[in-house]
Amino acid sequence: MAAWAGESTVTTAVSPIYGVSLPQGYRQWELIAPALEDAPLDELRTVLGNKLAVDALRAGTLPLPDGAILVKLAWKRQRSAAFPSATVPGEPTTVQVMVKDSHRYAASGGWGYGRFIHGQPADEAQHKTCYACHQARASEHDDVFTHYAP
Amino acid sequence: MAAWAGESTVTTAVSPIYGVSLPQGYRQWELIAPALEDAPLDELRTVLGNKLAVDALRAGTLPLPDGAILVKLAWKRQRSAAFPSATVPGEPTTVQVMVKDSHRYAASGGWGYGRFIHGQPADEAQHKTCYACHQARASEHDDVFTHYAP
Repeated sequence: MAAWAGESTVTTAVSPIYGVSLPQGYRQWELIAPALEDAPLDELRTVLGNKLAVDALRAGTLPLPDGAILVKLAWKRQRSAAFPSATVPGEPTTVQVMVKDSHRYAASGGWGYGRFIHGQPADEAQHKTCYACHQARASEHDDVFTHYAP
Repeated sequence: MAAWAGESTVTTAVSPIYGVSLPQGYRQWELIAPALEDAPLDELRTVLGNKLAVDALRAGTLPLPDGAILVKLAWKRQRSAAFPSATVPGEPTTVQVMVKDSHRYAASGGWGYGRFIHGQPADEAQHKTCYACHQARASEHDDVFTHYAP
């Protein structure tokens, strides 16, 4: 069986600053939306969410409730061998997590952040940038960039 | 249809040629992979699958079993207002369905096809192209373009 994110990268390792881990079973969570990140990253991405997160984003209920979790999977984009006008996921790059806990993460808008590379958390420097960017650009949507795709 | 008789539908409309309908609850199904279709379509897409389909594609078990269903959601791609290097789903365009039933659809590689626009099936001319293209380009992967994204 091929390795897949839901089981090969779950780890007890937690992110610096926030102590966020990869949630068990996230690869089975419901789709919120795909996205494309331009070059130089040139990544296809997909945001999944647990039921609390999906229900709130679908209904437009903000802020999201405590317990909501979003997980963004990212892959390098590559040309499809079978269908030349399509590009598809190549190598997985990062898995990024947002966990809502308005008490524990009161100092960062109620969100804890985790950025994982091959199942291991990125360093503290990378985690220092999460909140400032989300807060500066997405504060009208509870610091969440992604909208539910109809 | 016995293999998926338990799946009721969100619409009574069925595709020409194949009689495929939109399966109930497909928006909650598990992610298989996102994709980008180049201009002029310029669409972000995401393929979801029922458990039979996801388990087979994740494990690399081909051909997919009877009862497997794949659903591809597609949206026009638009620039994110909040994050300029990202493009995200805009207007939904089509929802495309593949249903495996090796007996009912023996003449089309075991797959029935359905292409829906705003919940209504596209015309017969559009459905005449499905099998020939899938068979010509993806026969080594049971006529399925999409691979499970790790």
